[in-house]
Amino acid sequence: MAARVVDLRTDTVTKPTDAMRAAMAAADVGDDVRDGDPTARRFEAEMAALTGKEAALFVPSGTMANLVSVLTHCDVRGSEVILGDDSHIHLYENGGIATIGGVHPRPVRSNPDGTMDIDRIVAAIRSPDGVIYYPTTRLICLENTHVNSGGRCLSVEYTDKVGEIARSRGLKLHIDGARIFNASVALGVPVDRLVKAADSVSVCLSKGLGAPVGSVIVGSKAFIDKAKFLRKTLGGGMRQVGVLCAAAHVAVRDTVGKLADDHRRAKALAEGLNKIEQFTVDSASVETNMVFFDIVDSRIPSYKLCQILEKRNVLANPRSLKSVRVVLHYHISDSDVQYALTCFERAVEELLMGGTESEH
Amino acid sequence: MAARVVDLRTDTVTKPTDAMRAAMAAADVGDDVRDGDPTARRFEAEMAALTGKEAALFVPSGTMANLVSVLTHCDVRGSEVILGDDSHIHLYENGGIATIGGVHPRPVRSNPDGTMDIDRIVAAIRSPDGVIYYPTTRLICLENTHVNSGGRCLSVEYTDKVGEIARSRGLKLHIDGARIFNASVALGVPVDRLVKAADSVSVCLSKGLGAPVGSVIVGSKAFIDKAKFLRKTLGGGMRQVGVLCAAAHVAVRDTVGKLADDHRRAKALAEGLNKIEQFTVDSASVETNMVFFDIVDSRIPSYKLCQILEKRNVLANPRSLKSVRVVLHYHISDSDVQYALTCFERAVEELLMGGTESEH
Amino acid sequence: MAARVVDLRTDTVTKPTDAMRAAMAAADVGDDVRDGDPTARRFEAEMAALTGKEAALFVPSGTMANLVSVLTHCDVRGSEVILGDDSHIHLYENGGIATIGGVHPRPVRSNPDGTMDIDRIVAAIRSPDGVIYYPTTRLICLENTHVNSGGRCLSVEYTDKVGEIARSRGLKLHIDGARIFNASVALGVPVDRLVKAADSVSVCLSKGLGAPVGSVIVGSKAFIDKAKFLRKTLGGGMRQVGVLCAAAHVAVRDTVGKLADDHRRAKALAEGLNKIEQFTVDSASVETNMVFFDIVDSRIPSYKLCQILEKRNVLANPRSLKSVRVVLHYHISDSDVQYALTCFERAVEELLMGGTESEH
Amino acid sequence: MAARVVDLRTDTVTKPTDAMRAAMAAADVGDDVRDGDPTARRFEAEMAALTGKEAALFVPSGTMANLVSVLTHCDVRGSEVILGDDSHIHLYENGGIATIGGVHPRPVRSNPDGTMDIDRIVAAIRSPDGVIYYPTTRLICLENTHVNSGGRCLSVEYTDKVGEIARSRGLKLHIDGARIFNASVALGVPVDRLVKAADSVSVCLSKGLGAPVGSVIVGSKAFIDKAKFLRKTLGGGMRQVGVLCAAAHVAVRDTVGKLADDHRRAKALAEGLNKIEQFTVDSASVETNMVFFDIVDSRIPSYKLCQILEKRNVLANPRSLKSVRVVLHYHISDSDVQYALTCFERAVEELLMGGTESEH
Repeated sequence: MAARVVDLRTDTVTKPTDAMRAAMAAADVGDDVRDGDPTARRFEAEMAALTGKEAALFVPSGTMANLVSVLTHCDVRGSEVILGDDSHIHLYENGGIATIGGVHPRPVRSNPDGTMDIDRIVAAIRSPDGVIYYPTTRLICLENTHVNSGGRCLSVEYTDKVGEIARSRGLKLHIDGARIFNASVALGVPVDRLVKAADSVSVCLSKGLGAPVGSVIVGSKAFIDKAKFLRKTLGGGMRQVGVLCAAAHVAVRDTVGKLADDHRRAKALAEGLNKIEQFTVDSASVETNMVFFDIVDSRIPSYKLCQILEKRNVLANPRSLKSVRVVLHYHISDSDVQYALTCFERAVEELLMGGTESEH
Repeated sequence: MAARVVDLRTDTVTKPTDAMRAAMAAADVGDDVRDGDPTARRFEAEMAALTGKEAALFVPSGTMANLVSVLTHCDVRGSEVILGDDSHIHLYENGGIATIGGVHPRPVRSNPDGTMDIDRIVAAIRSPDGVIYYPTTRLICLENTHVNSGGRCLSVEYTDKVGEIARSRGLKLHIDGARIFNASVALGVPVDRLVKAADSVSVCLSKGLGAPVGSVIVGSKAFIDKAKFLRKTLGGGMRQVGVLCAAAHVAVRDTVGKLADDHRRAKALAEGLNKIEQFTVDSASVETNMVFFDIVDSRIPSYKLCQILEKRNVLANPRSLKSVRVVLHYHISDSDVQYALTCFERAVEELLMGGTESEH
Repeated sequence: MAARVVDLRTDTVTKPTDAMRAAMAAADVGDDVRDGDPTARRFEAEMAALTGKEAALFVPSGTMANLVSVLTHCDVRGSEVILGDDSHIHLYENGGIATIGGVHPRPVRSNPDGTMDIDRIVAAIRSPDGVIYYPTTRLICLENTHVNSGGRCLSVEYTDKVGEIARSRGLKLHIDGARIFNASVALGVPVDRLVKAADSVSVCLSKGLGAPVGSVIVGSKAFIDKAKFLRKTLGGGMRQVGVLCAAAHVAVRDTVGKLADDHRRAKALAEGLNKIEQFTVDSASVETNMVFFDIVDSRIPSYKLCQILEKRNVLANPRSLKSVRVVLHYHISDSDVQYALTCFERAVEELLMGGTESEH
Repeated sequence: MAARVVDLRTDTVTKPTDAMRAAMAAADVGDDVRDGDPTARRFEAEMAALTGKEAALFVPSGTMANLVSVLTHCDVRGSEVILGDDSHIHLYENGGIATIGGVHPRPVRSNPDGTMDIDRIVAAIRSPDGVIYYPTTRLICLENTHVNSGGRCLSVEYTDKVGEIARSRGLKLHIDGARIFNASVALGVPVDRLVKAADSVSVCLSKGLGAPVGSVIVGSKAFIDKAKFLRKTLGGGMRQVGVLCAAAHVAVRDTVGKLADDHRRAKALAEGLNKIEQFTVDSASVETNMVFFDIVDSRIPSYKLCQILEKRNVLANPRSLKSVRVVLHYHISDSDVQYALTCFERAVEELLMGGTESEH
């Protein structure tokens, strides 16, 4: 029997529950490209309602959700998008908005809490107005929660403020809401309120929510109608997609309520890690299901630490030589957290011992 | 209880069988983007073996399969692709190879049998050689079966010949094999032999084969490794995609053997339609699961004919004012064919009667 | 002293006249990107007036003129342009509208007279209307005179008819008028009337007109304002460009009136060539400054013919193994035409003699 | 008689000298696209020699020089370029590398001296290596002199260091050398030494050097051969371009030697401005022909200051509400500098007086 693995690398590793599998098997389906799949239509309507937008579109991935959203807002050649220089879209989506979509990214400095300073955003907005060497800013992108800051949340106030700037300058606001439900739960603010200022939001169903495949884009009906073309162009139009939407429906129904547990466990893990002398975590930064911690002992390189953990069936991701990321999700129980902490302690010991021994 | 519908519009309307649904529910899955999903890996290996190529890649749609293939072969700016002016890629995929990929299409006249004349292909090949106003031909695309000729097959000889030209000129050959299994069955030639000359093939799993979602691309290992990046860029990288691959595996296992029945029924339908005085079908053109027929009575516009059929729960697609397309697939039984033929006869009668009546 | 060369390869070889050189040296200039160059402004106004459009834009080449025009009309992602499959834009401009601009070309069969059948144009127009796998036709391109048909002219009637179709379907009409002055002179129709139906026209100044560098785009003020951005993006914004516009102004002033001589000489050359037994020219096709002739003797390959001519300082371009193109322009006098004809005769004799000799 | 204007806005306003005009008028020309223009060939060879590279290519603008260079290095889809977030390419060239070329920009923080920290450059380099969501870094761009830092110079040491990083990581190095001659003169280092580490350099001929139109790209022969295609695609291939190259040749011959005077005058102007109480200039930052100064009196908005100066025929550019840019070039004499300083003083007085008055 294979040993149980405590996989703390990321929340995309979540596998579908039995309820999701049963829903897939029983899904009422149709040709979504030709006629609209009935399960997809219901699920899209549900997601639109949940996020307070007119319409929704199911797509195969979070990358496509962002790509379709940015390109739909920036459908005119010569468009520029303002986004965080530490944002997922800028760093981890193959630069697709430029390499596939010809949209010019204008990265603005990301703060440690996932925001960009309002002043910097305003200063970066450009419109022609007689200047012929500027692209035209058409979109601002936020990311909530913000992955590279350790899953921190953007507040309603901040989001509204950026939305106001966008509106007043004739720009659109897109939120990469891959983990927007985590933000909603952590802030205690309904998703529809949290994204009220946004013209579009991408929501991932296969991260913490646990659906096997998919994201949705939500926005106005006109926006989603346009997005549908681009989804087809990119090859994201799927036929009897109801099988995936059925699972995603269960994910939203069953898993959102469990995210608070992931957050509680992240805090517990952070506290436990902080008690290990060689580690330090900024507890205030642990707002959702992620913990980023620093290694303050030079004898412990992150990748060695993770190698030793792996032998004990605990998986974690080095972020840099001195920093590690762990992510909570519904496969990780309270006892997994305790087990992981024990393993972290042992691994440190082993490394320090090893360090001593190697001097002989 | 809803009346049974005989849906002859296309074979993308096929719904998953119980076996496919069971396979989805039971699939062994993993994070395909991060670690490789075990079911996806097995299915890709199976498809690679079946098509005689080194490697395979599962993608969400036939459009993405072709887009990723063309763009992977044409990864250098200034590339040109030779393809049929009546091909699916040129006409029905949003022009994505140009609008998303910046590849210049060089359409060559498609013959009624789905081929392009070899001479025309050769004449269209261009390489710089001191000429600085030419794009560089990097790829030839064939389509087998060829949908706009009514699902006709390209022979091994023709395909090999084009492959030889490609090879001798340093070009690649891609086959849009959305219905390559239909061609294989109709020609009595194994798929791997049929596509031997090709550097890449896209194979659809959700048309006649009936899988709910997906296509695969097959080619050399190096090609598939490159294609994987582009799939991710476009947003076609899916997480626990094994649920879809499990269904696709069943589709290939269970349905390929039934395609011959679809072809037999297409021939029966064609013969029946030919017996209706107002219709004419070129029987020789009915090689696989499609029947294109012409209406030779000016009182019968195709769209009215199809409207009347729809009232009787028979769905068919007008191709033009005087031409209709019907497509067979595993939801269509022998008795459905008979029922459809009866409905066609009745619809003609109704239209001619109506025509007479309207003169009063 | 270098022997005089009769260069019949093309009319882009024309060198600036003394008057043009003097104009360049004396031009009143300014920073055109920043403030507008006074000579450029005057010349653009002159060209706008001459073509009956609101505004004009000077660009460094005919290729940029067409590229900027097509991309400005097709500024939304997912655009398709209908153009002749034998047109200069489709064949000889690096496929730039796709490879640089992401515009999908939809080539329609070119007739031997440079037209496309109206029916084919109409049939090629596509708009979404619920279909999500079509790009959207936004532009039709004509070419007048049409180079690959031997410089034949599109009539006012034909152009107006295509313009009417475009307008009625919400499309734009662009004319590649690289040699529109030749068409105007040959048809006896003022340029402004000839291009009345067009939303934009590119006009080359450095072919038969003889300016050293440049083309202009003409169209509505709104169109030219947008085109200016794209010219800057592509790198076609030039600083003290008045030096080029001054020469172009002289070219238009002095050379348009001489095009009729080029056409007369082309006819004379065609007649002379027709008298050579081994050649045949369709005299009706010689409408402007080009002569395409066929070689009807299998012992005379075009490239050998041109090699022999080159030794006698007569330059001509093989079009294929059995076809040659010669182009008239203001460096070619009546006596040059006679000299060239003599050389053609001698070359044929030499080839036939040589052919006989080589049998010994 | 029009009053003399002291135009300190930028050095692109320079007009051709009599010697340049004479050279244009006398230039030996040919069809550069077809045969190579003799004057262009000579000038390109001269520029290649001067910069120590194998080959050169004349293009109509600095924007095209950079665009062609970046796109030629990044000819494979999915390329990323590292460049300063305050660089000319990133900010003032329409985002063309992305919007036209599909290259993903990865801006790195620009320091006040025009450099990027070496560490930041290294950290930004990305290669796939099993990661499928990264674009591939293919190019680093430097800018020398760096316009947004006030024309400061990158040293040989810094440039060599970046070149070494590029080489060791398989990347290319492009230098936007719009004002590389200014850097060369200021540093006392020959241009060929200064750009030794670069795979390509763009050099502007129409800024401080005063040619009416044009830039050159220099690099290896293979690079320039590829660049020529792209120049043609973009529409930068010009016919009898020798008229422009003749002027550019004179510009390089006659004006490089005068740049030291521009630099001397910039320092004089900076000192003079520093003596005005309401202004402050970091003298150390005045390395070449630009002066950026700050206004330290809140009653003096930059745009009002510049409006008042304009009435006295002195033109300068506000950079922000509290900062102004002035640029020296060969139309600005020592007495112009004195006159401008007097006008600055008077304008300040007028604004402060006006401020007092307006209180009544």
